[in-house]
This record gives sequence, structure tokens and C-alpha cells, in this order.
Amino acid sequence: MANISVVTTATNNQVILRNYVSGFPKESDLYIAATTVDLRVPPGSMAVLVKNLYLSCDPFSRIRMEKPDPSSPASVARAYSIGKPISGFGVAKAIDSCHPNYKTGDLLWGRVGWEEYSVITPTPSSHFKIHHTDVPLSFYTGLLGIPGLTAYVGFYEICSPKKGETVFVSAASGAVGQLVGQFAKMAGCYVVGSASSKEKVDLLKTKFGYDEAFNYKEEHDLSAALKRCFPEGIDIYFENVGGKMLDAVLENMRTHGRIAACGMISQYNLKEPEGVHNLASIVYKRIRVQGFAAVEFFDKYSKFLDFILPYVREGKITYVEDIAQGLENGPSALIGLFHGKNVGKQLVAVARE
Amino acid sequence: MANISVVTTATNNQVILRNYVSGFPKESDLYIAATTVDLRVPPGSMAVLVKNLYLSCDPFSRIRMEKPDPSSPASVARAYSIGKPISGFGVAKAIDSCHPNYKTGDLLWGRVGWEEYSVITPTPSSHFKIHHTDVPLSFYTGLLGIPGLTAYVGFYEICSPKKGETVFVSAASGAVGQLVGQFAKMAGCYVVGSASSKEKVDLLKTKFGYDEAFNYKEEHDLSAALKRCFPEGIDIYFENVGGKMLDAVLENMRTHGRIAACGMISQYNLKEPEGVHNLASIVYKRIRVQGFAAVEFFDKYSKFLDFILPYVREGKITYVEDIAQGLENGPSALIGLFHGKNVGKQLVAVARE
Repeated sequence: MANISVVTTATNNQVILRNYVSGFPKESDLYIAATTVDLRVPPGSMAVLVKNLYLSCDPFSRIRMEKPDPSSPASVARAYSIGKPISGFGVAKAIDSCHPNYKTGDLLWGRVGWEEYSVITPTPSSHFKIHHTDVPLSFYTGLLGIPGLTAYVGFYEICSPKKGETVFVSAASGAVGQLVGQFAKMAGCYVVGSASSKEKVDLLKTKFGYDEAFNYKEEHDLSAALKRCFPEGIDIYFENVGGKMLDAVLENMRTHGRIAACGMISQYNLKEPEGVHNLASIVYKRIRVQGFAAVEFFDKYSKFLDFILPYVREGKITYVEDIAQGLENGPSALIGLFHGKNVGKQLVAVARE
Repeated sequence: MANISVVTTATNNQVILRNYVSGFPKESDLYIAATTVDLRVPPGSMAVLVKNLYLSCDPFSRIRMEKPDPSSPASVARAYSIGKPISGFGVAKAIDSCHPNYKTGDLLWGRVGWEEYSVITPTPSSHFKIHHTDVPLSFYTGLLGIPGLTAYVGFYEICSPKKGETVFVSAASGAVGQLVGQFAKMAGCYVVGSASSKEKVDLLKTKFGYDEAFNYKEEHDLSAALKRCFPEGIDIYFENVGGKMLDAVLENMRTHGRIAACGMISQYNLKEPEGVHNLASIVYKRIRVQGFAAVEFFDKYSKFLDFILPYVREGKITYVEDIAQGLENGPSALIGLFHGKNVGKQLVAVARE
């Protein structure tokens, strides 16, 4: 009787949080460590072992690196743990599964660890099986994932756009902004974007259909820049940055304007957030500001896919990705987000299918 | 043939703007001057000559005292004119009329000048005939006028209250706040108010049904005061003051909270408005902030009257007024608003019916 040797474990490199972050995160706040993962999930569980293919770099990770405030359950719930791998959204392939809806070889996207292999327990509110593979799989971290859904619900549901309205998008070449610009043009709006470099500004105008764009780093007066682009004012602001830009926008909003508050990335690394002074405009101009998160709109995801996939296949929607190769380049890719280093959606390619 | 002498003119005292205001307004920014008014309106016009009975003191008047910004049509449209009487909402009686819907003796409320007599051209969006006179006429400057409609649409439409939710109201004993507290209790909410004196805080608890109340001037940490009153956080904030209070509220809002931005009186007299730092909460907690103005909800006025009049007649809604006697006391009453001198709705009694 021969002994059959079966490989049941693998090395699992992980991106670990070294310490809680105050101010700008540094690459040294994260480190890579190798652990071992069991390649079989325990029978009787609802778990799936997945191999991570792509990891999404998201600004929200910065908030999760903050030291939790014990008096705030929400802060405790979202905070990463020191010494443990960070997590986020990614695209993965099932290697072994005890979950009735997933079998070995299935592709999915959803919440995974920043590591080569993750053990997950999929739920309809955290993981989606991937059925369409004629489009790049990496798109499920961006165009067909959370950023896509964010742009879709943020623009169509939260902003209630009408043909002929004026739209401003900050961080406009980012994961979400590049789509909002294209949606705005499809809706018959005039749309202007801001970004942090000439290269990105060119992209906005040549690739994403923005009518106008400016590099906010070269404008000493943001309000004047907005007045130049919007002599009649702004109906809709898709807010990704906060701070001084929000203040300048409030000055330039029109009556009954709408602000979809998607993110405020300029504020996440500040020990003391900037003060915003022009909030009385909200009263004078009867403005609506609505914070939202795509994860609360997962019931719309299949409708969103039905809407967007034909455009993607016909090449009518463009999506630019900035792909870091290898888990070991994950920390620098993630930290680069906060310095505007990425051009388009930042993600990390961890493994091939 | 005898000459019959008919009195066709009267002295018309007016409250005139002396100069545009920067910072806190002073009584000397206004002055009283006597002019003469023709007591007959020109035949063929749509005008009505009214005798003003009550004038409403409104925080918004401060904004209209600001020097207009020629580049902003809205600013130009709302600004008072130097050397002319200021204006606002009031209760008046028709003395002469060429308007088909108004006859001599009719009572109405709407936009009038701060003067003894005004010539107005009523429109459905600026004037309402008063049909119910079994309640105090002065109520049409408050409970049954703009402040009442503001509380009604702001609370029921903008805040979307649900039974058991927690509600915070700033300037809670003011023209609007005293009603919001009562509406919140009727809706089965827990409601807390802030005000600027012990007397007002007592009123909140003993007269308007507030569950808790605090004097913001005696709290060195507004956020801590709110945490004390709302250990589980705030679902609804009825915003009348802005600035530091708004910042503290944002820290204490719950997920999916709603802020009805009715006014920001603490900011109107500042040359540089205070910075609000906690706006990222709007994203994290998916908060909705909605500016609104009752004048955009006049289509709901008759529904509002049907709702509120039975409560008023049955004594189930209380309304406290602070009445200055005589037009000559109008300037000090109006300026007093910005120092929190009024207890309840501030108005000016100009003449008896």
C-alpha cells in the first residue's frame, strides 16, 4: 500500500497593517508576510477558499487604517486590525468550496483579504459570482464592480440629472469619476472635471468626453476656475474630494443644486480636516447634499450590469486602469492613491487565473 | 355748491435702510422716516393699499441687508435698497383695492413693506387672504405663516421622521423651533432642543414638550452635550444655526441621518463664516442635508392650515410670541433677533385692526 502525498497547503503572502495611521499613510505602515494556508476548507462549513486575482485600491482603506474610537461602534467595525492583513474588494477564483452556490473554478468578486488566498463565506451582500467573462476580469474591481455601481447610483439616483444641466466632477479621472463624466454626456449634460496633472486633464477631454477640465494644482483660485467653466453655475456636483474644492463648489452652485457625496479623499489624511465655510449656500440655494455608498445599492447591481455591459462590449464606455503587478507592489499602489499617482482605476494584479 | 373735503392721504412712517451691513446689524443701520401715502389706489391697476397690522421679524432680513454682489443675480434680487423701506412678511388689512380678489376690509398676510401702509400687488405666490379670524391675527406672522409652514414642510417632508427616531433642534424656542419640537413629539420621536438662555430652556421643557434641552452658551463642548442627550446618536437635525453647532451635530449623527437646513443664523453676521470640519461624516454615515425654503411650498399651505388649525383651536399646539409694540420699536426687535433677545416668535404690532 503506497502513501499518496497530496499537497494541501500553500504559502500565502499577505499585506499586513503594521500600525494605525495618522496623517498620510506610508508604505512602511504596511508589510508583506508569508503565512501558510490550508487549501481545503473544512467540510460542513459555508466557506470558500479563493485564489485572489485582482485587488482593488480604494480610498476608503485609509479610513480603515485609522485607530478605532472605542466609543464609536461604526469606527470599531470598519477599522483594520494591527498585525492582520488588510482587506477590500477583489476578483478571485474558487479553489475549494463547501458553499452550495460556489464550486471549484467559479469566478467571483467581493470582499477578500490582501493576500494570495482568502477563506471567505460568501453572502449575497458581499460577493457576486462572475457570469460574464468576455470582458476583462479586472473590470470587476472597477467598471463592473464597486466604482461602476457607485458612479451609476450616484449619478442617476442621487444626482437626478436632467438634460442640459451642468455637472462638475472632482477626481474626475479616477475609478468613479471617469464613468460619471461619460454618464453625464450620455444624459445630455455639460460636464467639467478636475484632476491633479496635465496628463489626467488631457485624458478627461480626449478619452472620457469631458467638455472642459482643469488641473486643480495649477489654479490658485478654485472658485474662479469654476466660474470660468460654469459662468451660469453648477447644477450637479459629484463630490470625491471635499475640503477647499467643496467650498469653491458651494460658491458656484445653482439654486436647487445637488451634491452626491461619494468621497472626500483630500480630507482622509489630515489630522484636522479643513473647515468648509460656504455652507449657508445650502440654505440660500436650497441645495441637497447626499452621502451614499454603493454597498447599500447591491439590489441594483444586476440592473446596472444589464445597463453597462452592452456599452462596454460596443466600446461606447471607456475605462482606464492603472495596474500594479504583484502583491508585493500592493502597498505602494495603495499609498500612491493619496498622492494622485494613479492614472485611472488603481488595482493590483496578484495572480493569473 | 359746497366743497366736500375728503381725506385721501395719510402719513406713512417707514423703517428705512441707512446703509448695507457687514457684521452684526445695529439699530442705527435703520431709521424711521415719515412719508405721505395716497389712500386710493389708481383705478385700472391690480394694486391693493393695505394698512399693516403685524410685521414679522425674520433672520433672513439680515441677508437682505448685505451689500449685493453685482455678479450674483440672486444676491442683487434679494438685497434691500439703501434709503428705501425694508420689507418682509406681515399681516395687513385692505383699505382700498383695484384687485378683483381683494376688497376693502379684507385681511391678508404676505409680503409688505416695513411701514404703516403698503401698496401691494397680490399674487398667489406672495399673499394669502385670511379666512380664519377666530385665532389671533398675529399668528399669521408665525404659527400660521411662514414659520409654521417652514416647520411643517421641514419636519414632515424634508426630515421624513419615523416613530422612535431621535430629533435635535437648534434655536429651538424660536419661531420655527418651538413647532418642530411639538411636531416631533406628535410623531413619536425623542426630541432635544438648544437655546441661548435658561428661560428658553425651561420653556422648551415645560411648554413645548421637548424631552431634553440645553443652553448652548453654558456648554464648553457642544459635541459632549449632544452625546449626553443622544447616547445613541441623532437621526434628524433641524438646522437653524450652522457653524460650531453643525460641526458638533455631524459628529453625533447616526447612519442615514437627515439634516433639514432651514437657516444658519449664527453665520449671517460673520464677515468670514466659521469653518465646518466634520463634513466627511456625510459620506461615512450616508447623511442627507437638504436646504429648503417655505416659499417654495406654498402649494401645501392650505393642507397645512387644515392640519394645524384644529390643533390650535383645541389648544394642542402652543405658540409663544414676543411682540414689540409700534413700528418705532421695529428696528430694535429685528436687531434683537441676532442676539437671541426674543423669547418665541418675534414680531412687531404696528396698528390695531
